[in-house]
Amino acid sequence: MTNVDSRPDQNKTKSYSGKVVSIEDVEAAATRIRGEAVLTPLIRHPVLDERTGAHVFIKPESLQRSGSFKFRGAYNCLKQIPEAERANGVVACSSGNHAQGVAASAQLLGMPATIVMPADAPVIKLERTRGYGARVVTYDRENEDREAIAARLCAETDATFVHPFNDPAVIAGQGTVGLELADQAAQNGVVLDDVLACTGGGGLSSGIALALAFKSPETVFHTVEPALFDDYKRSLEAGALLSNSAKSGSICDALLSETPGEIGFSILRQLAGEGVTVSDEEVLDAVAFAFTELKLVVEPGGAAALAAVLCGKLPLKGKNVGLVLTGGNIDPKMLLKALSR
Amino acid sequence: MTNVDSRPDQNKTKSYSGKVVSIEDVEAAATRIRGEAVLTPLIRHPVLDERTGAHVFIKPESLQRSGSFKFRGAYNCLKQIPEAERANGVVACSSGNHAQGVAASAQLLGMPATIVMPADAPVIKLERTRGYGARVVTYDRENEDREAIAARLCAETDATFVHPFNDPAVIAGQGTVGLELADQAAQNGVVLDDVLACTGGGGLSSGIALALAFKSPETVFHTVEPALFDDYKRSLEAGALLSNSAKSGSICDALLSETPGEIGFSILRQLAGEGVTVSDEEVLDAVAFAFTELKLVVEPGGAAALAAVLCGKLPLKGKNVGLVLTGGNIDPKMLLKALSR
Repeated sequence: MTNVDSRPDQNKTKSYSGKVVSIEDVEAAATRIRGEAVLTPLIRHPVLDERTGAHVFIKPESLQRSGSFKFRGAYNCLKQIPEAERANGVVACSSGNHAQGVAASAQLLGMPATIVMPADAPVIKLERTRGYGARVVTYDRENEDREAIAARLCAETDATFVHPFNDPAVIAGQGTVGLELADQAAQNGVVLDDVLACTGGGGLSSGIALALAFKSPETVFHTVEPALFDDYKRSLEAGALLSNSAKSGSICDALLSETPGEIGFSILRQLAGEGVTVSDEEVLDAVAFAFTELKLVVEPGGAAALAAVLCGKLPLKGKNVGLVLTGGNIDPKMLLKALSR
Repeated sequence: MTNVDSRPDQNKTKSYSGKVVSIEDVEAAATRIRGEAVLTPLIRHPVLDERTGAHVFIKPESLQRSGSFKFRGAYNCLKQIPEAERANGVVACSSGNHAQGVAASAQLLGMPATIVMPADAPVIKLERTRGYGARVVTYDRENEDREAIAARLCAETDATFVHPFNDPAVIAGQGTVGLELADQAAQNGVVLDDVLACTGGGGLSSGIALALAFKSPETVFHTVEPALFDDYKRSLEAGALLSNSAKSGSICDALLSETPGEIGFSILRQLAGEGVTVSDEEVLDAVAFAFTELKLVVEPGGAAALAAVLCGKLPLKGKNVGLVLTGGNIDPKMLLKALSR
């Protein structure tokens, strides 16, 4: 592994001195997932540009295998499990997108998968996870400890636990979104000024920020979180890990992590720009906008960054903006709620 | 204009001797619409490949400005109206997608637009057409002659009539979809064996077939129509223009043209392969598949070609298949109908 400290310090906020995940890890992940993950396109839409005054480049990870970016990290992780251990299977905790990413990856690699999911997860996510052949174990989000349940399940079968975000292999896999963003922007002849992504535990966000720091160092990366789940924004401002008091209560089920992941936080505290928060109402409007204007199916947690752009949460006029739509696994009744406002 | 007869006759079914629309016209259209139309991506999705056994390359014109491919032809046409005549405006007849394409183009070019639309057009299409600043005049699809209404409106203001499909400039504009398909397939290192597109009056289909004949002559183009509106399939088989007896009665509101356009037919009788028909039930399943699996919002008329692929209407296993999703302007209640099956 190349020592990333040797990278020229182009900008005080952009130096990256972590050694847990390197740019070489992200590049190796890109090779590993090639042919299995979708190289999602970079989409322009005039209505979004007209509405925001920015040049917006949409990276729709909703079009990814399993319906969210989570497949990237999960496949990168599972592919590295030694052959001898694969038959023992994998265990994961997830509200539904990591669940599907792990289940789809396990199915491709012929491994058993058990997923611990909150009982109130969207029906579509529960069904689709089972559809990939995984066993689903549900728990009560308010009163049960999903990590303890997962630990017990791992012990039973000697399975490998796949953390949704605090794992170097997972972060490296999600970071391939950032590599592609930088490449595709360059193919379009532009340098992205800002990139926004919906942020839960920070696996995707830290991976993207890391990739951009090396491949597009002029770009400022921003976390976008639901208002009551702004642990990253507050932790980054405080310079220390802070938790959310709420455990549920936002429609953005994919973004309800309690505390930033330690690895993701160690990366983002060096590389992230200003954090942004959005309300559930703003997210519902963004889901409806994506459906009506962009013709893209986006779930609430996947539309948070779009909401931030539409609501002018950052000064983006005239800028080249990368916007990651992280997932599209939405229940029809939630979509109807968004469309009937 | 180069004489297209001089093109080498690579394949008896693929020679094109028409002079009304040339490949140079399509290339000129591509230049004319650049920067205003979206260069829609070519999307892969593993689930579609697994389901069909083919290598499917999706061209989602649902992501086009105005929500369908219609913007391409309309803008190409309106842009060629002399400056002195622009203030008189344009008139068009359309169930809604050509309406939006013309209205959006007219708005960009600062021209007044009047659109004659069936009273039973999807609400979203009526609203969005008005949203682009156009005046909408409704008529009764079963009992009124929309062309007569349009002729009267044109006479009133000396406006230019923009035919939805039987116009060389419109066909050339729609043909840019074929140019992009050929280019993007080549960038992916593949030659498309077959291309399927939803077919109404045949402006898009003839434009695509023409572009492919020059840019990807190995590719076979197929029209896809609703079962009761298979005028192209029957006309191509008979070698003469045949009409549909039905005027309404399919959910594919975008594909209910009565007879093939003469220009489109003259092109497709030289260049089209086997035609395909699909039922409304098959189309509804395709709309639901696009929503649930592909995370794309596609209207019934835009999903006909997807339905043909999903239902195995052609032998496509192992082949490289281009699939044009022509539009995404669907009313939420129609989507719900598709999802609740």
